[in-house]
Amino acid sequence: MISNIYIIGVGLIGGSLALDIKHKKPESTIFGIDNNQAHLNEALELGVIDEKATIEDLDKADLVVIAIPVDATVRILSEVLDKISDFGLVVDVGSTKSHICKVVENHKKRRNFLAMHPIAGTEFSGPKAAIRDLFQHKTNIVCEVEKTAFKLQEKALNLFSNIGMRMRYMNPESHDKHIAYMSHLSHISSFMLGKTVIEKEKNERDIFDMAGSGFESTVRLAKSSPAMWAPIFKLNKDNVIETLEDYISNLEQFKELIENDDFEGVYNEMKDTNYIKQILNGIK
Amino acid sequence: MISNIYIIGVGLIGGSLALDIKHKKPESTIFGIDNNQAHLNEALELGVIDEKATIEDLDKADLVVIAIPVDATVRILSEVLDKISDFGLVVDVGSTKSHICKVVENHKKRRNFLAMHPIAGTEFSGPKAAIRDLFQHKTNIVCEVEKTAFKLQEKALNLFSNIGMRMRYMNPESHDKHIAYMSHLSHISSFMLGKTVIEKEKNERDIFDMAGSGFESTVRLAKSSPAMWAPIFKLNKDNVIETLEDYISNLEQFKELIENDDFEGVYNEMKDTNYIKQILNGIK
Repeated sequence: MISNIYIIGVGLIGGSLALDIKHKKPESTIFGIDNNQAHLNEALELGVIDEKATIEDLDKADLVVIAIPVDATVRILSEVLDKISDFGLVVDVGSTKSHICKVVENHKKRRNFLAMHPIAGTEFSGPKAAIRDLFQHKTNIVCEVEKTAFKLQEKALNLFSNIGMRMRYMNPESHDKHIAYMSHLSHISSFMLGKTVIEKEKNERDIFDMAGSGFESTVRLAKSSPAMWAPIFKLNKDNVIETLEDYISNLEQFKELIENDDFEGVYNEMKDTNYIKQILNGIK
Repeated sequence: MISNIYIIGVGLIGGSLALDIKHKKPESTIFGIDNNQAHLNEALELGVIDEKATIEDLDKADLVVIAIPVDATVRILSEVLDKISDFGLVVDVGSTKSHICKVVENHKKRRNFLAMHPIAGTEFSGPKAAIRDLFQHKTNIVCEVEKTAFKLQEKALNLFSNIGMRMRYMNPESHDKHIAYMSHLSHISSFMLGKTVIEKEKNERDIFDMAGSGFESTVRLAKSSPAMWAPIFKLNKDNVIETLEDYISNLEQFKELIENDDFEGVYNEMKDTNYIKQILNGIK
């Protein structure tokens, strides 16, 4: 039975999980915990959570979801596990997994913890950003599943499959390496595109009339929460630097093709990259 | 009266214009001209055009829309203007404007030409990509409007306003400078993101399960047509190189902040760039 569910961090991801779980399990009680009291009150008013709670209440939890910046997760995870009963399950949903798994590798309640990363989100944040069905048909990367107690694995996988996620199993190091390419780099490329355009154009407001849907979609991630993303880059530093080096080197090379008037080369680069169509069709 | 309309290049933009114009002016005949006979037949079958035609027929045109790669526009524009009657109007819809305006600056029929750039599109191409209402609420940059005959200006502006465009007037040099930031750079950042990820991950197909909506939207433009885009970078070479230099330098600086563990700096960069929200809200 999962009756008492505690969501630590009632923002986009934590709040959306709360809504989906409540919808599937209307008999459960969703408790919200958040350092930001305004967010906590807002989550209550919006019906994202049923009640407010604190870390001290976690001994009553059947499930705890930690959905806060990854560095904060690293800081509190041991304390949360200390408080949980032998039958309680703690999951985190952070975008980096190695540090998080590392910090509890020798914890006596390691088997009460499941590390996961649902690959879902929007560019918005806070309780107001919480929406139903965010996880429908989305991939949930689960790390070190073998370190979690069988019954708790089963409980978690049933619940998260039930709200639409498909599970994929990886070790934390592979997760962090590949997610740097598939997600973290997209965010930086988008933020830096936004920065480049703002710096150039900020005194010419009319110019933004020239923004089309292409610019809009490429720069969308630059709306994301810095409080969430700075810690991700911190905890995945080496992988993120590697992706940035690859990306910058590809940009330099493309620039050189243009400088050298090698527009056949420019054409071929783009033609080869059109292969992304097949890849994106594959993820539908 | 605009009865005989010739669309040169029956792809995404030319085809979508054909559909909207036909819808507003069902009494008109839309003729299609295209080097690609398969595309031309396809446009006819799809009802994007009413009849096939050739360059030789242009003396009968009330309106000619040139919607082909910008280097091809530069090549044929004088010939098209040679063929047009004194009452015919020629417009082009290319993403660069300086070279195109330059090539006809001394043409004896310069007053029969209007240079414009409707900022609209999708990542798809060819006649099948043509859709209704693509230009609804979209900006149309018009260059050197004063060089077009009054009556033809009026004819064009009525028609294109009628299918939903809002007009903005700029000189070709300003257009090319600003559009490099607002559109051309987005395409390159997206293509190079796609390239970086494909290079890293192409032997690990499973990894693409990790692609979320963030990656998808940032890489969307990498599906765009190389045949259309290589000539744009060629004709806007200097501006595009400048945007790339700015972009690469911002990426380098962001990488250094991460390397130096300056995550407060990383946070602040992103916080400042969140300003893009206001800008994008402004363009709605």
